[in-house]
Amino acid sequence: MNQPITIAVDAMGGDNAPGVIIKGVLQAVRANPVKIILVGDKIKIEDTLKKLRYSGNDIEIVHTVQTIQMGESPKESVHNKPDASIVLAAKLVSDGRADALVSAGSTGAVVLSAAKYIPRIYGVRRTAIATVYPTMNEFKRNDHLAFMLDVGANVHCSAEELVQFAIMGSSYVSEVREIANPTISLLNNGEEPSKGGEKMQKAYRMLSETSGVNFIGNIEGKDVLRGVTDVIVTEGFVGNIVIKTLEGAAKTVGSLSKLAFKMKWSWKIGLLMLRKGMQALKEITDYAEYGGAPLLGFEKIVIAAHGRSNEKAISNAIALAGKCVRDDVCGQIEKRIKDFEMRAHSEYDRMTEEF
Amino acid sequence: MNQPITIAVDAMGGDNAPGVIIKGVLQAVRANPVKIILVGDKIKIEDTLKKLRYSGNDIEIVHTVQTIQMGESPKESVHNKPDASIVLAAKLVSDGRADALVSAGSTGAVVLSAAKYIPRIYGVRRTAIATVYPTMNEFKRNDHLAFMLDVGANVHCSAEELVQFAIMGSSYVSEVREIANPTISLLNNGEEPSKGGEKMQKAYRMLSETSGVNFIGNIEGKDVLRGVTDVIVTEGFVGNIVIKTLEGAAKTVGSLSKLAFKMKWSWKIGLLMLRKGMQALKEITDYAEYGGAPLLGFEKIVIAAHGRSNEKAISNAIALAGKCVRDDVCGQIEKRIKDFEMRAHSEYDRMTEEF
Repeated sequence: MNQPITIAVDAMGGDNAPGVIIKGVLQAVRANPVKIILVGDKIKIEDTLKKLRYSGNDIEIVHTVQTIQMGESPKESVHNKPDASIVLAAKLVSDGRADALVSAGSTGAVVLSAAKYIPRIYGVRRTAIATVYPTMNEFKRNDHLAFMLDVGANVHCSAEELVQFAIMGSSYVSEVREIANPTISLLNNGEEPSKGGEKMQKAYRMLSETSGVNFIGNIEGKDVLRGVTDVIVTEGFVGNIVIKTLEGAAKTVGSLSKLAFKMKWSWKIGLLMLRKGMQALKEITDYAEYGGAPLLGFEKIVIAAHGRSNEKAISNAIALAGKCVRDDVCGQIEKRIKDFEMRAHSEYDRMTEEF
Repeated sequence: MNQPITIAVDAMGGDNAPGVIIKGVLQAVRANPVKIILVGDKIKIEDTLKKLRYSGNDIEIVHTVQTIQMGESPKESVHNKPDASIVLAAKLVSDGRADALVSAGSTGAVVLSAAKYIPRIYGVRRTAIATVYPTMNEFKRNDHLAFMLDVGANVHCSAEELVQFAIMGSSYVSEVREIANPTISLLNNGEEPSKGGEKMQKAYRMLSETSGVNFIGNIEGKDVLRGVTDVIVTEGFVGNIVIKTLEGAAKTVGSLSKLAFKMKWSWKIGLLMLRKGMQALKEITDYAEYGGAPLLGFEKIVIAAHGRSNEKAISNAIALAGKCVRDDVCGQIEKRIKDFEMRAHSEYDRMTEEF
């Protein structure tokens, strides 16, 4: 247990790689008891480390010059580039040389590399990408963040899979964000249990009956930013569209002045004064600030940091990965999924229907 | 053709009914060549008309004291209240006494009353609720509004139904907003034709092949506010969540100052100066300003105005209904749906597969 946690970091993924990644790694090793394996171009990495006057022994380098760029097809590149930095980083985790994976590269490539080399937790039907974002915290929760999953690892999924997402989200939030018994909501087109069609009705029913899941019912789109729940569960198709709609809305607020309505001079000055505030708002809606999006359901922790991650975001992502390993988030998920599946498919229940 | 257009208006629907509704009606008859049948409490209506010194003969009253309130179950109330103002107004349209229906009452009750008494256009598989909202107008279109459907008349639907929504939206926008050959986009979790699962892939393929529909491909959530397309087509479940998420986001912007991040004094002053601008932004995102949401696919025009509609919004909704009748939007939709269905299910195509 006292062995240090090792995190494989994709040195070549992200808009400002490898410079920002290496700086983030340095910040992380100074602040956290972690060891890092940086995967990427050894010459560039050593050069940068030298410039930053690093002389510790917490950072190991695994050399490769192959990289996957943002525009590339995740499917083709993960298949055709067995030595790409993200692929090698995932292999380090599957080989047991690292405990967790952090990458700011193309989310698609991160997800596919993880899926190719890191096994799904036994009992988990589908992995999910989670995202963290700030809310108005109307209900005065422990913190003002909300957690939504899935936002893109799946298009559609079954009611059972939505329940598993709820369990994974609940485990993660209670361990990592230290919220006891976090509240879970289902994103739907109305609050009533009858809303959203057969699948959502079934998910509602199952969530109400799942012990250990503090399900508080459906929420609507208008509640997403209110901060009235800890975990929002949704299908990947909807989660993806909602999160991107919010990103678009934040951008719109950032360029309010272009809006085609008549501006009073006082508004213009107000906007000018607010410019930095708007920027801050944009940043606060950017998950890079929260250490990136965890991929839940794999046997090891995978954190997809934002492509635009700065040094602090990378350091946060590494710290987050370290915390997840220490708190044994994956083990917790495995245990709770097992409990759920055992109860949901109890032999006694089946037998009572037979006899 | 020179017979004046008659519009049935639910006098009792909306947060400020009947006062605001009656004022809106007066504003409408003064500005437009329309006759109005106001359905509601005759004593209250006559009293208000007298106070407003109305003495024309463009307004007829159909008396009823039964109303459906916002909190009531649409299903039960439409069933149990055959004399409710919205129900009687829908009957006036189905009886041919009125050409269109406007109500600011509970959207559910409006939709169900229409569905109970007004036939669906022959060939239309499902009706849809459309919504109009302002965008950044990045692509400098004729106006800065976008049109999204369905936002709630359906939960899920088939690829064919999505194509029909595209045709109805295209007809409406080209007639009413006078945009020639409006661009149509499919809301999806990515731009590639392969995104969104089988149904969305099929809808993409069908839309690409549908003549008279200017389909420009998939758009993502982040594009919803950009103003890069005239009509956004989506399933009701997703449309409902997206529109409500945007409503929630507008509200959040309106109360930015409550956000749990450290505020500089300059931001605070900026926000103070912007308060009215924020209010304007909120209003601009409120479809009441655009005359309400049309229900498309019925044989007659139905406009669901916002519950919070003010006098101007009601007047706009009536003017919009009048324009739809004059432009024969329903006839256009019928013609284009027929064209589509005849081509999509051509006897020749079927036969070539057989022989």
